[in-house]
Amino acid sequence: MTSAHAPVAQPTFVRSDFVVLGAGGVAVVLAGLAHYLEWSGAVAFVLAAVAVTLLASLVGRSVEQLGDRFGPGATGVLQSALGNLPELFICLFALKDGLVGVVQAALIGSILANLLLVMGIAFVVGGLKHGSQAIDSTRARTISVLMLVAVVAMVFPSLTDQLHTPAAGHEKALSMIAAAVLLALFALTLPASLRKGNSTGMAGEVQHEAPRWPVGLAIGMLALAGVLAAFVSDWFVAALQPAMDSWGVSETFAGLVIVAIAGNAIENVVGVQLAARNQSDYAFQLIINSPLQIALVLAPALVILSSLLGFTALTLVFAPTLVVAVFLAVLLAVVITVDGESNWIEGASLIGVYVVIASSFWWG
Amino acid sequence: MTSAHAPVAQPTFVRSDFVVLGAGGVAVVLAGLAHYLEWSGAVAFVLAAVAVTLLASLVGRSVEQLGDRFGPGATGVLQSALGNLPELFICLFALKDGLVGVVQAALIGSILANLLLVMGIAFVVGGLKHGSQAIDSTRARTISVLMLVAVVAMVFPSLTDQLHTPAAGHEKALSMIAAAVLLALFALTLPASLRKGNSTGMAGEVQHEAPRWPVGLAIGMLALAGVLAAFVSDWFVAALQPAMDSWGVSETFAGLVIVAIAGNAIENVVGVQLAARNQSDYAFQLIINSPLQIALVLAPALVILSSLLGFTALTLVFAPTLVVAVFLAVLLAVVITVDGESNWIEGASLIGVYVVIASSFWWG
Amino acid sequence: MTSAHAPVAQPTFVRSDFVVLGAGGVAVVLAGLAHYLEWSGAVAFVLAAVAVTLLASLVGRSVEQLGDRFGPGATGVLQSALGNLPELFICLFALKDGLVGVVQAALIGSILANLLLVMGIAFVVGGLKHGSQAIDSTRARTISVLMLVAVVAMVFPSLTDQLHTPAAGHEKALSMIAAAVLLALFALTLPASLRKGNSTGMAGEVQHEAPRWPVGLAIGMLALAGVLAAFVSDWFVAALQPAMDSWGVSETFAGLVIVAIAGNAIENVVGVQLAARNQSDYAFQLIINSPLQIALVLAPALVILSSLLGFTALTLVFAPTLVVAVFLAVLLAVVITVDGESNWIEGASLIGVYVVIASSFWWG
Repeated sequence: MTSAHAPVAQPTFVRSDFVVLGAGGVAVVLAGLAHYLEWSGAVAFVLAAVAVTLLASLVGRSVEQLGDRFGPGATGVLQSALGNLPELFICLFALKDGLVGVVQAALIGSILANLLLVMGIAFVVGGLKHGSQAIDSTRARTISVLMLVAVVAMVFPSLTDQLHTPAAGHEKALSMIAAAVLLALFALTLPASLRKGNSTGMAGEVQHEAPRWPVGLAIGMLALAGVLAAFVSDWFVAALQPAMDSWGVSETFAGLVIVAIAGNAIENVVGVQLAARNQSDYAFQLIINSPLQIALVLAPALVILSSLLGFTALTLVFAPTLVVAVFLAVLLAVVITVDGESNWIEGASLIGVYVVIASSFWWG
Repeated sequence: MTSAHAPVAQPTFVRSDFVVLGAGGVAVVLAGLAHYLEWSGAVAFVLAAVAVTLLASLVGRSVEQLGDRFGPGATGVLQSALGNLPELFICLFALKDGLVGVVQAALIGSILANLLLVMGIAFVVGGLKHGSQAIDSTRARTISVLMLVAVVAMVFPSLTDQLHTPAAGHEKALSMIAAAVLLALFALTLPASLRKGNSTGMAGEVQHEAPRWPVGLAIGMLALAGVLAAFVSDWFVAALQPAMDSWGVSETFAGLVIVAIAGNAIENVVGVQLAARNQSDYAFQLIINSPLQIALVLAPALVILSSLLGFTALTLVFAPTLVVAVFLAVLLAVVITVDGESNWIEGASLIGVYVVIASSFWWG
Repeated sequence: MTSAHAPVAQPTFVRSDFVVLGAGGVAVVLAGLAHYLEWSGAVAFVLAAVAVTLLASLVGRSVEQLGDRFGPGATGVLQSALGNLPELFICLFALKDGLVGVVQAALIGSILANLLLVMGIAFVVGGLKHGSQAIDSTRARTISVLMLVAVVAMVFPSLTDQLHTPAAGHEKALSMIAAAVLLALFALTLPASLRKGNSTGMAGEVQHEAPRWPVGLAIGMLALAGVLAAFVSDWFVAALQPAMDSWGVSETFAGLVIVAIAGNAIENVVGVQLAARNQSDYAFQLIINSPLQIALVLAPALVILSSLLGFTALTLVFAPTLVVAVFLAVLLAVVITVDGESNWIEGASLIGVYVVIASSFWWG
């Protein structure tokens, strides 16, 4: 009993904080050198990608430390609002450079990577260690239903374009409507997330760990990571085109696979670790939360911001294959949740589907 | 114990009967004046829409009172056969005027409005009052599986057309085959509906209320409502084109949203009321039963009748966007049922998807 | 207790063995006469179809008898590897003759016939005799999820072609990748199948019957049936084109319905019998296992073999309608499993959907 209240001498920084800070600092410096000294495209891109990944992790840590001061609900809200900050910067800079195709591919690619690749790895790791694992909470089912709904709302404007309906000339207006609907849904879910333990809240995930950083430090870290993320995102986008050229991959493949994985790498490791610790239901929620944020917040925010800022307008009219791929991915994720359990064969299947889909975008 | 057998002095007419009869009478008279005195299109259309809505409610009441004389199963059968009578008239008159596009949009629109908008409202109302609500009966699951099957059979002929298969020149024949299959499925489900309490029966819904109207009155009301519905439907269709022109909405949008909602308004209120009273499973069955009737009975009956009566033939070759929209709507409804419960966030999501889909048909 | 160990004088051949052997022998001889004496196309085709069907049954019996010597897991593995031997021969001979369209239709048609027609018949027979039947095992759910995943991976290359993506010129490479992924998934599931009672194993079905044939006889029967199947498959394919011409059916319809049903007829009878004996969950597994083998083994093996042997290359780029049909069929099968029970109305619906889909391929 006393242990819970005892003033444990908890360090402000734990080992993983030092790793992220140190590696992040080095990566940012190297990425900056690569950018300003005009190193070769591929090297500059890899360094910027690593730096972005580590900054994304630092943003996540700061948000978590900050949120825990205001209760677990606040963490969820903050994570939803700020957790995709680096991806937001990358997409904005890419839109500024007119790379609409890359951004669209990256948005869909992030969803695919989480729902198929990361989920598949988590199922395989968890399943091999613990056999069949249960995914049976009300919350998991609600999130996965919302994921399906959000994806349907997000890609529906694409259909009117592909199917040459009279609305085909109004993609921008229709994208704005869909974006407003998605953001409204997100706003509606926020209060539920603020109430702790509410089973219908789904705007974020809560880590059950005591906050270690003082509020000032957390805010400072967040500000620092945010500013650096803005710079590094710029370098990342600048290096993207040369890197794509030197590797000979298509714009869509670069967005779908490389940008998508770079933006989510570290938070996904946590999901896999949870599955390895047999917390499969929680792992599922964590892994599916990221693509949910992309569909509910990031994509609609980019649609509206790109229009407000006068960048190349992002519409929700995605390429047909992307639409079908993301629909199938979310359908598989929903079926596997509703089915109530996961095992390593299901995981291997998800990875297999990801390989087939990603391959089909290899050719530019 | 005695109360169940005591001769309660139950009134023949209750208050809501008077409201429907009175308002219906006034609306029919006004709609008739608007039609014959050639009032402006929009006014005539609105009056006819209100009159149709009230007549649909009166048909529903008569059927219920009549059916209860013959046991609850009979109500289901009668409701299935006669419940969509006003919609049948509207669609037949519209086909006579060659408005195939409006009819197809109205059929799909009724399904969409029920599965997304009405279901969404019921979930929001029920969820806000009672939290997470269970939808877990065998019957609810069977109906929702049948809904998916019926929609797949109904829209499959569309695919052969869109995908330019060799069957593309045989839409009429293929539509007749699909219509025959759907009607056969409907016929097969009738005996199950006649057996009370049979969990696989799904041809209608049973209200647990003692009959109040004598048989003669019920038959008379039904006949009166039916005849009036035929007239008003004619006026409704006649006013549709001018109203569409004066509002500047497309034919598809008019059918999909306006006609669809006018034809189902009152019965849908009942579904929402049931959800508000925490009878979510029953509300779900009631709300999904109406689109099921459209796919199993109304659409195939119109295909066959339009051909027999020599009207512009209705085929089951729908516009691609309608096909995708109805498939996605029924998939969402199925996933939400199989998931076993509803909450207000799922409800809000369904409404959001409806808004996005309806918007995309705004442009003619 | 003693009865289990008592040396029961079990006959080597039971009555059904004699029926299959006798009828098979007669059919093979007649089919051979029809082929070499050049009887009319339709007669030769029907005789070859009957012979193939009976040989498929004989292969199945031999595999079962052989597998039981090595434990139930081995049966599953053998069945997976050899159970589709006659279909493999038919498809290879058809590819040799350049009938790619027939092979593709037959692959999809086998899946459709099992998931819709055979499943529907099993549900109707079982449901009428026993009412609502449970399909609720973990294994049934895992198989049905895998079925969805396998079909998605199998048909995804088709999308890139239909949607005119840059990968459209690389169908062969993409088909090989998808084939490799599917075969890898199959290989991964083999160890699980070898462990008896493992709930995630799904590479085959186990009959709980004591082996009756000595090993030598089982191997001999298997070899004989295999060699005969190779010959008869050749005659079957040779008679296919003349028969199609004389009946006036399209190549796709022939492959989708006639070849598909001929190749699976007898094993499907077993599935229906199991449902009639109220072993619905087991019947479901058996019926869905065959299409799963087609997607995981037969189709990818044919893609690779046709390329290695220099035949007309089979790609996984199927006609759009086939893709949509198989996707809808597997979705219905999944929804019905996840729903947890079957009844005869669901069965009738599945048959109805099959009729609509098959009709739409009637026109060449």
